[in-house]
Amino acid sequence: MASLNSTHHALETSHPNPSLQVTADHRIKMVEAPVEEPGPGHVLLHIKTTGICGSDIHFWKTGRIGSLVVEGDCILGHEAAGIVLKCGEGVEDLKVGDRVAVEPGVPCERCFLCREGRYNLCDDVQFAGVYPYHGTIQRYKVHPAKWLYKIPNNVSYAEAALLEPLSVVLHGVRTGGLSLGRPALICGAGPIGLLALAAARASGAHPIVITDLEPKRLSFARDYVPSCITYQVDRDLSSEENAAAVRRLFGADEYSAPSTILECTGVESSVVLATFAVRRGGVVCVIGVGKSVMNNLPFMHISLAEIDLRFINRYRDTWPAGLACLSGGTLDVKKLVSHVFPLEKAMEAMDICSDLGNGSIKVQIVDEVAAAVV
Amino acid sequence: MASLNSTHHALETSHPNPSLQVTADHRIKMVEAPVEEPGPGHVLLHIKTTGICGSDIHFWKTGRIGSLVVEGDCILGHEAAGIVLKCGEGVEDLKVGDRVAVEPGVPCERCFLCREGRYNLCDDVQFAGVYPYHGTIQRYKVHPAKWLYKIPNNVSYAEAALLEPLSVVLHGVRTGGLSLGRPALICGAGPIGLLALAAARASGAHPIVITDLEPKRLSFARDYVPSCITYQVDRDLSSEENAAAVRRLFGADEYSAPSTILECTGVESSVVLATFAVRRGGVVCVIGVGKSVMNNLPFMHISLAEIDLRFINRYRDTWPAGLACLSGGTLDVKKLVSHVFPLEKAMEAMDICSDLGNGSIKVQIVDEVAAAVV
Amino acid sequence: MASLNSTHHALETSHPNPSLQVTADHRIKMVEAPVEEPGPGHVLLHIKTTGICGSDIHFWKTGRIGSLVVEGDCILGHEAAGIVLKCGEGVEDLKVGDRVAVEPGVPCERCFLCREGRYNLCDDVQFAGVYPYHGTIQRYKVHPAKWLYKIPNNVSYAEAALLEPLSVVLHGVRTGGLSLGRPALICGAGPIGLLALAAARASGAHPIVITDLEPKRLSFARDYVPSCITYQVDRDLSSEENAAAVRRLFGADEYSAPSTILECTGVESSVVLATFAVRRGGVVCVIGVGKSVMNNLPFMHISLAEIDLRFINRYRDTWPAGLACLSGGTLDVKKLVSHVFPLEKAMEAMDICSDLGNGSIKVQIVDEVAAAVV
Amino acid sequence: MASLNSTHHALETSHPNPSLQVTADHRIKMVEAPVEEPGPGHVLLHIKTTGICGSDIHFWKTGRIGSLVVEGDCILGHEAAGIVLKCGEGVEDLKVGDRVAVEPGVPCERCFLCREGRYNLCDDVQFAGVYPYHGTIQRYKVHPAKWLYKIPNNVSYAEAALLEPLSVVLHGVRTGGLSLGRPALICGAGPIGLLALAAARASGAHPIVITDLEPKRLSFARDYVPSCITYQVDRDLSSEENAAAVRRLFGADEYSAPSTILECTGVESSVVLATFAVRRGGVVCVIGVGKSVMNNLPFMHISLAEIDLRFINRYRDTWPAGLACLSGGTLDVKKLVSHVFPLEKAMEAMDICSDLGNGSIKVQIVDEVAAAVV
Repeated sequence: MASLNSTHHALETSHPNPSLQVTADHRIKMVEAPVEEPGPGHVLLHIKTTGICGSDIHFWKTGRIGSLVVEGDCILGHEAAGIVLKCGEGVEDLKVGDRVAVEPGVPCERCFLCREGRYNLCDDVQFAGVYPYHGTIQRYKVHPAKWLYKIPNNVSYAEAALLEPLSVVLHGVRTGGLSLGRPALICGAGPIGLLALAAARASGAHPIVITDLEPKRLSFARDYVPSCITYQVDRDLSSEENAAAVRRLFGADEYSAPSTILECTGVESSVVLATFAVRRGGVVCVIGVGKSVMNNLPFMHISLAEIDLRFINRYRDTWPAGLACLSGGTLDVKKLVSHVFPLEKAMEAMDICSDLGNGSIKVQIVDEVAAAVV
Repeated sequence: MASLNSTHHALETSHPNPSLQVTADHRIKMVEAPVEEPGPGHVLLHIKTTGICGSDIHFWKTGRIGSLVVEGDCILGHEAAGIVLKCGEGVEDLKVGDRVAVEPGVPCERCFLCREGRYNLCDDVQFAGVYPYHGTIQRYKVHPAKWLYKIPNNVSYAEAALLEPLSVVLHGVRTGGLSLGRPALICGAGPIGLLALAAARASGAHPIVITDLEPKRLSFARDYVPSCITYQVDRDLSSEENAAAVRRLFGADEYSAPSTILECTGVESSVVLATFAVRRGGVVCVIGVGKSVMNNLPFMHISLAEIDLRFINRYRDTWPAGLACLSGGTLDVKKLVSHVFPLEKAMEAMDICSDLGNGSIKVQIVDEVAAAVV
Repeated sequence: MASLNSTHHALETSHPNPSLQVTADHRIKMVEAPVEEPGPGHVLLHIKTTGICGSDIHFWKTGRIGSLVVEGDCILGHEAAGIVLKCGEGVEDLKVGDRVAVEPGVPCERCFLCREGRYNLCDDVQFAGVYPYHGTIQRYKVHPAKWLYKIPNNVSYAEAALLEPLSVVLHGVRTGGLSLGRPALICGAGPIGLLALAAARASGAHPIVITDLEPKRLSFARDYVPSCITYQVDRDLSSEENAAAVRRLFGADEYSAPSTILECTGVESSVVLATFAVRRGGVVCVIGVGKSVMNNLPFMHISLAEIDLRFINRYRDTWPAGLACLSGGTLDVKKLVSHVFPLEKAMEAMDICSDLGNGSIKVQIVDEVAAAVV
Repeated sequence: MASLNSTHHALETSHPNPSLQVTADHRIKMVEAPVEEPGPGHVLLHIKTTGICGSDIHFWKTGRIGSLVVEGDCILGHEAAGIVLKCGEGVEDLKVGDRVAVEPGVPCERCFLCREGRYNLCDDVQFAGVYPYHGTIQRYKVHPAKWLYKIPNNVSYAEAALLEPLSVVLHGVRTGGLSLGRPALICGAGPIGLLALAAARASGAHPIVITDLEPKRLSFARDYVPSCITYQVDRDLSSEENAAAVRRLFGADEYSAPSTILECTGVESSVVLATFAVRRGGVVCVIGVGKSVMNNLPFMHISLAEIDLRFINRYRDTWPAGLACLSGGTLDVKKLVSHVFPLEKAMEAMDICSDLGNGSIKVQIVDEVAAAVV
């Protein structure tokens, strides 16, 4: 199976490298993985923290996300931070001992989308943790130095690993165009929605309403960003009726309605709610990805209100901004880590994440052994 | 029934004012209408030309478009040009004898959307030809001077009346972001699609492909803009398959795919085609308005390709640009007028338009009598 | 002398209306002014607070700003908030007793710039406190209801009056494009620079450096926004050398340099500093207005670095966002009020402002008498 | 001396390779240059046409442009097209016999500006014809395959070589934001100004005015784009007065003034003219680069009119659009070639270009020998 971006030789080491792998037949397992020698432009990392993402659970439970199919064993994990153990030839900007955050997608850098700076749309991206590219839930991982970001001392590995989901949100915030003193609606209070809430607040949006079906999640949201207003979506109401109720929380008139909505669920009814809640001429930025096909979009309403529906795919050029948010204290992401497991218990971490009723927000796997290369 | 923007008194005149009215029970009729005195800021026009729009037919045949319902007799027509017969108090920029194009929607100028310059989204717009506001298929019409545009001598009334549908296209072109030397796709070869084709060519887009189900329309398109490439949509193929065929007309690779698509049909399958045909990171500007609800939108594809779906509602600030296009010779719209009827035969004009099989493109009603005010 | 927007009749009242007026021969004086009856669409306000702006001092000391010349007696003041005493005919959105912030510029609403929503560029704007339009340093003032904004109870008159300078900053922030986690430079730590600093922080920009010549002002800036970094401009260095020193505060490489600079001084050397400090491809938004002509602009450098120089004129559509910032707690402006004087001592307030060495930041005139109309 | 992007070995060939070189002591000379073997990712070209640019003359006559200094012998030329003679290892998209246009600047592809897609701002760009990187006025040239663009049969080498100056214009047009039916001003009727004129017309801008000091150039402009209006700048008038005269050509009112100006001279007085001619709220895109420092910029006017001054450095992502313009017939550039010289007479070509009074527009050097590698 291919590694990211180059063929690396096995590294002779006596150190074990436990890894969490998903299989083609929908199982997960802890397996000892080989340790690779970093090739030119690459470094060998000791992965200190990996957060688990809904997509990891999805690959496990369904074996695919859209056209991405788990066709063989693959180490999961892509929300990661670690420490540099060894540098390959030609690596100049990093050295052994540097603490780094990992940007997991490595684009081709040859196609026109890479040339235009929209590398997140590159068709040939090699993404850690998406078959056939191994991910970060292992002790030792080789990654291109170019896609690693040094983290300052006041940013922990736990926070640095959260830069990956935060990047999704930062790209959404940039695409959706939040601005100081303007109202915003966040749909969904899962990990992405909560990060979007914090990012909206840090961008000066006000007032901010956040929706969800679950009171527990909304309660967490209020604790996390006290100035926000929460709205529990009522399953007995239509999306249009829920949207009307959301609008009343912003104020009576059209001008008070949110000019930007960050839709973080990808659920059809929530996207429809967003199109009815947004003010005329506003933007709905769909961050969440749901089913392959969406129905029931209120087409004529969207046309008459001249709503801009924007969609995003991951992120581009977001780690530096995310790091500035964390190190500068404009965003606090630590509170989102609800559970922590050692690497050896990664399967328990996956179990916790796959059980929606337990109130977990972000589950991270940490590895505190003193890893080394010999 | 209310007039546009103010209560005007009846004008004492012996001149007849034939008008085409739609009724609440889905009929059309020719009726003698009163002639109004222009109030402050208004002028009395002799309407020389009105083009018939699909929405006129829609009001006739179905009695409504979305929330706009024909609840009583209403003079139809909104694609108009005429000559100034009389100026109300305070009118400074126009004088008797001026030839003018009519912008038919008159916004409130008080709401925040008007203040922001997005007056086309004003909730209180008074739109000529939409109940309860009388339209332009009559001889004498009062309209605010502010929403009339003087036309130069080298622009005919027929062309000036086409500024209204051209405005839709210009707003779409501006919203969709066509640019010099970049590929564009136009979906639909009806009047709006053909104007979009001409506008795309005049904007320097290249290559340009235009789609339709009807070979006759595509043949007209090739005569109208010889450098365009036509694609006849195959009803036996899926939208994705049709999109793949369209893409092959642009070239082999992703970069050759159209970065902007002007969707001018509002038909669900065509919007879906557009989302599959547009290049990754491109824009689909939906100009056509179709059903209330849209299904089958390829949600995950749109997300992964980071497609921007933009929608427009009519137009704003487009008449001056449209006039510059016509008087400067960058756009030729005359060829689109396929049928002309005198005002007295307006019902025949409506009949021609409602019959889709006869190859009509744009049907106009002209009034060449020597109208005057006495 | 004309009032704003309409000819108002004198109101019969026994109440005194002290006002601060500037004269054509460069004096200021306290004068009893007539009280006007609010015409249609207007309201009579009791002005509770007016902040003094550098432009007020400029009109006093030099008699002009560019083409705006004080040709006769004129009541100064335009940073104001008050309470509604009486409503003219047709006023629906306000009632007696409403507390309001004043947007002092009233555009024509007829020209194309107004129609486009860029009403701040209207050539016929009637601006309170700019000859021949009387300003707000008086007890009783008539103003169009449309350009007043209700303030909630948790916003004081002092804060509401600061919405005017904050509006300048909000328009600059919007124009310059600050964003979450991206570095920003503020040039100048006067009232506008300090508000820009607070707005940059509230928008999530990080890191933020602010410059000034005066250590006292920089010390105030550090107290006001503790996370900011201050740079004292060295008069003995060139603008390019000062810019290099500023860049070192952001970090070593080009990427660390500020992508947006808000230039709040209008001083030539500071604008030049900004063009050398901004990162390649960045934006310098010039908020401050200085001399009529600027020299020494490093033209070739600006071209090679592809810098965007944006300029602003006042503001448009900013009061609602400013109010949301104040009421939502994302911005704290109260700390900027360094001196308060009663209306009767308005001339002392002007004296304080005109003396640059006394460390005043924002001087406000308040009127706490129980004003009434009888 | 370094070659572009890699160290290439000399190719064993008996074929001569005449080249035009500039020297550190301000001379030009024809010299036999070595032929290089194309390394990995590179191809060997037979350069068929190179156009001479003002910068070539500048390097010759003054030895520098800004910080770029001719410190040793350097082959000039960067407006080029040719045919592939040999492909280095790993070249997949080109083959021997392909006709190609040359993008002469090769960016580092590592820095953040390259990553963002703004590769034209890369600090480490290797630009053909700028010391120490050899240019295209030679028979045999090695260039990275990635920065070559196949040209279709209906595009000649002469046209393909003009894609380089056209790219400057396309980047300027994109930056300045020309649009269909909107007025535009082009300052300067040299090669760049004339291309800008053609590009503005092809983008649908109307009306278009072009300025110059020389009647001969304006006469050429009228022949080239008959619908344009020409204005001969009057040396006896101030820039503001000339601007007023230019405005009168557009029409009487502010709305008629050009919303976009493409300034193609880089001359101070012309930039100042542009800032007075542009409509309030408009954009001046400065394409021309002139002196290091600019004086006399009407700062207060620019602020009050909220003018956006944008600057560009070369181009990015423009060859495909330029090729579409040429092959699609939306732009005709052939007429600009006023003089043609064989490679052996390159020094005569330089002489013609350096003599401003002879009416030359674009001088090209062509090489029609049957070049081959053996």
